[in-house]
Amino acid sequence: MKIAIAQLNYHIGNFEQNTTKIIATIGRAKAEGAELVVFTELSVTGYYPHDLLERKEFIEQSYSALDRIASHCKGIAAIVGGPSINPEPRGKKLFNSAFFMYDGAIQHVVNKSLLPTYDIFDEYRHFEPNRSFKVFDFGGKKIAITICEDLWDEQETQNEFGREKLYRLSPLKELSALNPDLVINISASPFSYNQENWRKNILIKNAIKYSLPILYVNQVGAQTELIFDGGSVFISKEGAILEELNYFEEDYRILDTETSVSNLQPESGTIEKIYRALVLGIRDYFTKMGFRTATLGLSGGIDSALVLVLAVEALGKENVRVLLMPSRYSSDHSVNDALQLARNLEVQYEIIPIQEMVASFEQSLSGIFTNLKNDVTEENIQARTRGILLMAISNKFGNILLNTTNKSECAVGYGTLYGDMNGGLSVLGDVYKTDIFRMANWINRDREIIPVNTILKPPSAELRPDQKDSDSLPDYDILDQILFNYIELNHSPEEIVARGFDELTVLRTVRMVNMNEYKRFQAPPILRISSKAFGFGRRMPLVAYYP
Amino acid sequence: MKIAIAQLNYHIGNFEQNTTKIIATIGRAKAEGAELVVFTELSVTGYYPHDLLERKEFIEQSYSALDRIASHCKGIAAIVGGPSINPEPRGKKLFNSAFFMYDGAIQHVVNKSLLPTYDIFDEYRHFEPNRSFKVFDFGGKKIAITICEDLWDEQETQNEFGREKLYRLSPLKELSALNPDLVINISASPFSYNQENWRKNILIKNAIKYSLPILYVNQVGAQTELIFDGGSVFISKEGAILEELNYFEEDYRILDTETSVSNLQPESGTIEKIYRALVLGIRDYFTKMGFRTATLGLSGGIDSALVLVLAVEALGKENVRVLLMPSRYSSDHSVNDALQLARNLEVQYEIIPIQEMVASFEQSLSGIFTNLKNDVTEENIQARTRGILLMAISNKFGNILLNTTNKSECAVGYGTLYGDMNGGLSVLGDVYKTDIFRMANWINRDREIIPVNTILKPPSAELRPDQKDSDSLPDYDILDQILFNYIELNHSPEEIVARGFDELTVLRTVRMVNMNEYKRFQAPPILRISSKAFGFGRRMPLVAYYP
Repeated sequence: MKIAIAQLNYHIGNFEQNTTKIIATIGRAKAEGAELVVFTELSVTGYYPHDLLERKEFIEQSYSALDRIASHCKGIAAIVGGPSINPEPRGKKLFNSAFFMYDGAIQHVVNKSLLPTYDIFDEYRHFEPNRSFKVFDFGGKKIAITICEDLWDEQETQNEFGREKLYRLSPLKELSALNPDLVINISASPFSYNQENWRKNILIKNAIKYSLPILYVNQVGAQTELIFDGGSVFISKEGAILEELNYFEEDYRILDTETSVSNLQPESGTIEKIYRALVLGIRDYFTKMGFRTATLGLSGGIDSALVLVLAVEALGKENVRVLLMPSRYSSDHSVNDALQLARNLEVQYEIIPIQEMVASFEQSLSGIFTNLKNDVTEENIQARTRGILLMAISNKFGNILLNTTNKSECAVGYGTLYGDMNGGLSVLGDVYKTDIFRMANWINRDREIIPVNTILKPPSAELRPDQKDSDSLPDYDILDQILFNYIELNHSPEEIVARGFDELTVLRTVRMVNMNEYKRFQAPPILRISSKAFGFGRRMPLVAYYP
Repeated sequence: MKIAIAQLNYHIGNFEQNTTKIIATIGRAKAEGAELVVFTELSVTGYYPHDLLERKEFIEQSYSALDRIASHCKGIAAIVGGPSINPEPRGKKLFNSAFFMYDGAIQHVVNKSLLPTYDIFDEYRHFEPNRSFKVFDFGGKKIAITICEDLWDEQETQNEFGREKLYRLSPLKELSALNPDLVINISASPFSYNQENWRKNILIKNAIKYSLPILYVNQVGAQTELIFDGGSVFISKEGAILEELNYFEEDYRILDTETSVSNLQPESGTIEKIYRALVLGIRDYFTKMGFRTATLGLSGGIDSALVLVLAVEALGKENVRVLLMPSRYSSDHSVNDALQLARNLEVQYEIIPIQEMVASFEQSLSGIFTNLKNDVTEENIQARTRGILLMAISNKFGNILLNTTNKSECAVGYGTLYGDMNGGLSVLGDVYKTDIFRMANWINRDREIIPVNTILKPPSAELRPDQKDSDSLPDYDILDQILFNYIELNHSPEEIVARGFDELTVLRTVRMVNMNEYKRFQAPPILRISSKAFGFGRRMPLVAYYP
């Protein structure tokens, strides 16, 4: 069977744009002789609409978009994802559904059985799970439709009480009993660099286990924090990957299920994947919010340097302007490194020294602060003065402020709320400092884009004389490993110590993570590239006892 | 049967404190001749621990606390809430359970069947639902234990596709078939002023329907945003409320199920309830975070006036200090009204005019802003300068900054991010402006605490000459009704217009709400007093198409 794979990027709630894109792709697939074109999970609404699903007008718009799309399915069939209303008098009022359209109408509705409700997923909040299974005939084949998590019935629990299974039901087991010829899975699986092979392995394992070919069609594009990476694949019943679509961009391909031969993407390294994910994350945030231009503060340090490189790649150098805001504690080399980078990347830059504004605050507060020693207060005034200046640029010129905090800092609270934690989007909030060094070196692989001095000098916030990050924090190579064990792997402090880390360092690190929930509560949305990012997917009580 | 009702306030994750409190109450109940003492849902951990439930060490601590508590149940039984591990190899790894303890050990574990996963509730994220039912004998009676939502099987769906039922199962129907003599329900039901009678009605309806007495024991105290109001009740099988415990404070009472007669709380008005809820919310935030003192900016306007009154009630006048930060646009009467209030409440105050710092910013930006008109940029610089000053006080003296934004402003984005939106806790972010006027008048019912001029003058941000809120916003009495229809009632713009509101005003208001998700994303936690507060219970996509 000739099937068109439509790996597209959708805008949540933009029914007009999503529908137009889907209808155009149906037209193209038909013109190219496809019998069926497959779109992704909740394609008509965009994934994930969250509580927009509770709004009646949203569901009505979704149904009319689906009807409009179905009217174009003449001489070709399409599978389109969208919410459907549960006809039963009890249970959640919606299903997460795949609509099979043919002859100008919706012919079948297949509902999702396994509803991920962990990490960044909230599907049971809105959807009733499916409990009955069917396959149907099309083009001489029996087709079984599944939706994303439906193939993940072997998913292990997210906690550590044993390596057991999260779900009680196996949709593929139920469906295989109905003897399908082909399994189609429409998905919205977000990227995470430390689970990249897991997805393919699950698909291959299932194809072999049930001796069934699987067509997996995944969405691409970023939705606030989440970055969907595409990489749709067709897998033979022997478990061989025969087709693989592009990563981090829209793609479209006609597949012949009978004659397909191996057509795979080149392998790329983890750092390159993260880089491409972040570029897509920035670009889609701007495009989908209707913004064009960005600003950020360039300190001469590695974090802001990396954000600038990413922003220029995502938005174009003409759409990024930077501000250098040296204080009396800024070293000459910091200013020079920042200038060099701005020139290397040919972005507009301005310099505003902050000393006068800081002095004005200190003067105004001197009456109240009489006889009190300088402390973090004065450091924060500097960071917050910079925050005001950047937001003034943002307000005056409509440039969105990009936040430059990295995951290591964000974890331990090494940053100033309403100061350097400002921004519309956190670009690096899910990237550990050690990976930031790796990415900077990767960016410089052919020529020096980021000044080498920026990469080599010891990290410093430069908020007091001779300050270094290592004055207050463990070395990043140790810190990041402890954080990864605690956050991504969810290990207890005792387990981390048992893996060979110094006990006091572990306890101090864990304590810093826990005590700074209040700062992260007010952080910008963070582009997610790992299996456990700060934000929506990690819900810790702010008010709690953290020993 | 003599049952002690333990309506207590717990600290999430503070096993030592929660356990000590529970054991002390068991001792008291035993000394006073009770046969059984009933605690609330997840009492040993505090409700709601969120993703702490995914941490192995958290569950281990919880189990050892439960064992310690059980060892004190000699000559008395206790029902204590806590997570229990699901012994099955498939499904979520935890149940939300009630532990029945007697003879120094856990005798029965009853698991929750209906897991609320909507609004502020996330229970299916962590728990497997119970599917089997049992009653057991104690003290010559057959007892059926249920947990909170288990009695809410008639819950209607949260959306508007019809008035149907959220759950497929009715635990009370299953249990009543086992002929219990008494239903005990352990709960963690948060307060919301517009659902206050709903809870009692559900309990009464169930008691009558199944002809069973119901003892409902609810937790009290605030957990970040959520305010639990207590108000535990015992209801006869005829549906009469025989005992009712205090609201918004810990309470304890011995109930004789055979001889109990009507012992109810006095009715109080909605505004008074909201006031008590907010005071509890502030007090518990501070107590449980280990903070003692607060600060806020006093503008002479009604919002900051109200926050100050609430803070003084919650923390004591000696623990609150305020800052007056007049600009060149502040009217004399604003400064005088603020001073008068500070004096009326006898709190420490300081005055720092902001003009010099604002001028310093404008001077530093003048090169970049050459030939550009003044706009919201300059207004925001004022608000952000105040934000820096307040955070400097907070940093230097350890006073937590209270945010003074109200729900109407928060909804339409009438506020400055990193400026007046700063704070550790938003006190009024779920209180509409019209209710703020009502509460100010209620506070002044006996004498003028809040200067009358503060209440009577037209609301203004005073960020430019002669500015009034009504320049940019509909009148608050109209605005608040539209917002309530859109946010609390989830009505579509069309439905709101059909209720008699001006179409352009409705569309403009809805648009302002939708376009400001990005500001609310970075807002402080908001004390929740309504059925739909901004924050954790209202999850809207930030990047989406909002027409």
